[in-house]
Amino acid sequence: MDDLLELLRAGLPAEALITDPDITASYANDMASFCDAGIPAVVALPRTVEQVQHIMRTATALRVPVVPQGARTGLSGAANASDGCIVLSLIKMDRILEISPVDRIAVVEPGVINAVLSRAVNEHGLYYPPDPSSWEMCTIGGNIGTASGGLCCVKYGVTAEYVLGLDVVLADGRLLSTGRRTAKGVAGYDLTRLLVGSEGSLGIVVKAVLALKPQPPRQLVLAAEFPSAASACDAICAIMERGHTPSLLELMDRTTVRAVNRMANMGLPDSTEALLLAAFDTPDPTADLAAVAELCTAAGATEVVPAEDAAESEMLLQARRMSLTALETVKPATMIDDVCVPRSKLGAMLEGTAAVAEKYDLTIGVCAHAGDGNTHPVVCFDHTDADESRRARESFDEIMALGLELGGTITGEHGVGVLKKEWLARELGEVSVELHRGIKQAFDPLGLLNPGKVF
Amino acid sequence: MDDLLELLRAGLPAEALITDPDITASYANDMASFCDAGIPAVVALPRTVEQVQHIMRTATALRVPVVPQGARTGLSGAANASDGCIVLSLIKMDRILEISPVDRIAVVEPGVINAVLSRAVNEHGLYYPPDPSSWEMCTIGGNIGTASGGLCCVKYGVTAEYVLGLDVVLADGRLLSTGRRTAKGVAGYDLTRLLVGSEGSLGIVVKAVLALKPQPPRQLVLAAEFPSAASACDAICAIMERGHTPSLLELMDRTTVRAVNRMANMGLPDSTEALLLAAFDTPDPTADLAAVAELCTAAGATEVVPAEDAAESEMLLQARRMSLTALETVKPATMIDDVCVPRSKLGAMLEGTAAVAEKYDLTIGVCAHAGDGNTHPVVCFDHTDADESRRARESFDEIMALGLELGGTITGEHGVGVLKKEWLARELGEVSVELHRGIKQAFDPLGLLNPGKVF
Ligand SMILES: Cc1cc2nc3c(=O)[nH]c(=O)nc-3n(C[C@H](O)[C@H](O)[C@H](O)COP(=O)(O)OP(=O)(O)OC[C@H]3O[C@@H](n4cnc5c(N)ncnc54)[C@H](O)[C@@H]3O)c2cc1C
Ligand SMILES: Cc1cc2nc3c(=O)[nH]c(=O)nc-3n(C[C@H](O)[C@H](O)[C@H](O)COP(=O)(O)OP(=O)(O)OC[C@H]3O[C@@H](n4cnc5c(N)ncnc54)[C@H](O)[C@@H]3O)c2cc1C
Repeated sequence: MDDLLELLRAGLPAEALITDPDITASYANDMASFCDAGIPAVVALPRTVEQVQHIMRTATALRVPVVPQGARTGLSGAANASDGCIVLSLIKMDRILEISPVDRIAVVEPGVINAVLSRAVNEHGLYYPPDPSSWEMCTIGGNIGTASGGLCCVKYGVTAEYVLGLDVVLADGRLLSTGRRTAKGVAGYDLTRLLVGSEGSLGIVVKAVLALKPQPPRQLVLAAEFPSAASACDAICAIMERGHTPSLLELMDRTTVRAVNRMANMGLPDSTEALLLAAFDTPDPTADLAAVAELCTAAGATEVVPAEDAAESEMLLQARRMSLTALETVKPATMIDDVCVPRSKLGAMLEGTAAVAEKYDLTIGVCAHAGDGNTHPVVCFDHTDADESRRARESFDEIMALGLELGGTITGEHGVGVLKKEWLARELGEVSVELHRGIKQAFDPLGLLNPGKVF
Repeated sequence: MDDLLELLRAGLPAEALITDPDITASYANDMASFCDAGIPAVVALPRTVEQVQHIMRTATALRVPVVPQGARTGLSGAANASDGCIVLSLIKMDRILEISPVDRIAVVEPGVINAVLSRAVNEHGLYYPPDPSSWEMCTIGGNIGTASGGLCCVKYGVTAEYVLGLDVVLADGRLLSTGRRTAKGVAGYDLTRLLVGSEGSLGIVVKAVLALKPQPPRQLVLAAEFPSAASACDAICAIMERGHTPSLLELMDRTTVRAVNRMANMGLPDSTEALLLAAFDTPDPTADLAAVAELCTAAGATEVVPAEDAAESEMLLQARRMSLTALETVKPATMIDDVCVPRSKLGAMLEGTAAVAEKYDLTIGVCAHAGDGNTHPVVCFDHTDADESRRARESFDEIMALGLELGGTITGEHGVGVLKKEWLARELGEVSVELHRGIKQAFDPLGLLNPGKVF
């Protein structure tokens, strides 16, 4: 421990190291509940690539595990500290290094906040699509670590689609450059995409080249009320089957709607069973929304209300974005699932989730990136009640089992972390896990990077 | 050898094995010139996953190298046989297993021809974007092997963007499933993307889940003539900087235009220095083309002609698609570069290429996926002339060096194969190559899959 600090100090300024246990303890967890977390030995806040390299060289020399962290908004415990580790927080490396409208790229350090980047590129008429609901807090490094999604993914795809190249400090401190700053490129294996979503287990991202799109017209949102989740799912399938390309297609169930209303007085329709939000950022969104409205009505919507203007559209987005946070107020504790199923199976998924809630006598609110089939069933419970806690964990697991049964995945965007670790092998199978181990071995032979996570 | 055939025959029907040396010799090469190729011991044409597994188990048991092949339209020698290898041709596994309009996916075997899939999904109102110019010949397996691009990539991205999941037979015959059939998913490392573009060196793709888009409106094409490559590049940068999203943005230089005219009597403007093709598949392509026409004129275009109708648009696409083939008729032999640079460096790339042509006193025709900065300088020469051949190889290499200098890559879409093998390490650097080796080791510890290719 003394050795560790001494060696770290040799290459880092004093303010880049936190050892006060009260403060280091505050870096122990991300935002997932019920995930083990240890006590870090030290928190390092480097500002340069060289400093990150120094930290990793030190960690390798002393065989100390390292946990990379962004803003710790993760929902799977992937950024949780392990006992005696170095927490390597990238939040001070937060410069936007370049924005190029001709090449449509941005070059950024990992600590840049998603919304800060979004606004910066907007000023150049550009658009960085990936928009997790936590966008005002989370970092690009964390987005890359988890391969984050968001609301616009149904049209624009997830973070992986926008990462062209990376600079990565390896476990032993060497610097790896992957990918490119060109629109295309196929030289060698796609190490960039391999690193995206690797949850800090293969290397420390210290720079990223991101692809940008031209800024689309402002999207216009429509809200449709349905008498049942099933009818809302019918509408979703019809919308996609007819070839529409909404820029957003989101679902909030009754529990979610009520929780949001209670939290923020949004005036959402409290009595609806399922609220569907659809949006278009096309040249003529009104016409597109009219077509979608018709499909909603045909599927049984009782009420279909297009937003009057951009402000009302934004309000509806806000409501959707605060859904997870609002659901967390329903009961003292929550566990958040992230199952993604083929769109055609969304109805079965929601029906099955309701059955799980009934079986275990629990409230399970659901919000969903419905156009992508990505559901967030939020199991609400009282963690001081042992029996309720047990039922919560069982239902949380049963929902993942259901997702796999329906041909889906245990995680659409939140990652595996420690929360779903036991489930990963079930989804991937033995052969895949073995290859995962081989890849991990090639990148991090001593197993120092984010140990105990993912697999 | 006798052992090999006997063992193979134990798990394959007679018609799945070709041993006649006259026929096996015809499987020695893909379409790249000047790449070493060996004589295969046998050509296997399996029809089922089990048969592929049997071949790989046999290869592993006897330590025989295996070269996977699709349609052998590759342009880097990546599908070339090595001496004594098993050529594993996937062309008989050519079934489209499923097309789902609701989930917007297709599930296919690797031997399906790109254009056959395209037409099949069109019938469901769907669109499979990746469209290499060889689309009437090349297979989905080969497209995945090389991570192919095409004309529409400037708007729709490359093959990698459309591969959701894979079934892969590993070197030892085990079956690996990667990815998913859902729109999103982040469970574990992205093995799917790692396999895409791996040029047959990590596993045999036997099934793919592909993402589809709704079919866009028919694109309308515009042709603009420029007095110089530089002014055409200015137009391209302006078009992208202004936030346009063309569905195609292609360049043909004077040599290319003339070659195409000579080959197919297309009536393209023979005297132009650079012909730019732009297209839009938006709801109002005429308006978009008008805006682009203005930018072309401002950049110095001498003539800007929008296609009159779909037929004329298609004719222009045909002209562009046959560019490589036409350039091959300029001289007895060609070497085709595939350098991709940041779009803003396209002008410098073309200027530099012209300087190389002058320095080596050679004809180098250029066609380019210009919107992506992906150029195909085609070095035309007489291979029976030793000095000209030497100059050709040197200029081919110098063009790659120039691409790297400009922040680009040696290959935008054709892959590394044997043709650019020496150059890969220069682009990737030592650290990356070492990780490549580690990954290869994890997938194919005996080094049986496509040995001698890529790195
Ligand atoms: C209210 C709320 C709403 C959310 N909505 C969404 C949503 O819509 N979509 C979605 O996908 N997620 C969502 N999330 C989850 C979370 O915000 C995302 O996973 C986000 O990408 C995490 O970013 P972060 O900076 O907080 O990373 P952290 O939580 O700090 O880290 C996440 C992972 O990345 C690794 N990591 C971080 N930085 C680096 C680096 N520089 N190099 C290598 N590894 C690194 C960590 O080790 C960890 O494994 C939400 C979370 C909350 C609290
Ligand atoms: C006239 C012409 C125009 C072209 N235009 C373009 C273009 O616009 N864009 C572009 O990107 N390319 C283009 N190409 C190059 C070529 O067509 C593509 O690379 C194509 O993807 C190759 O497909 P194929 O089926 O012929 O594969 P092959 O050439 O047979 O193989 C290509 C690679 O994939 C591997 N492979 C094949 N099948 C499998 C499998 N099932 N599993 C694992 N590995 C496999 C092979 O080992 C090899 O490494 C063009 C070629 C020609 C001749």
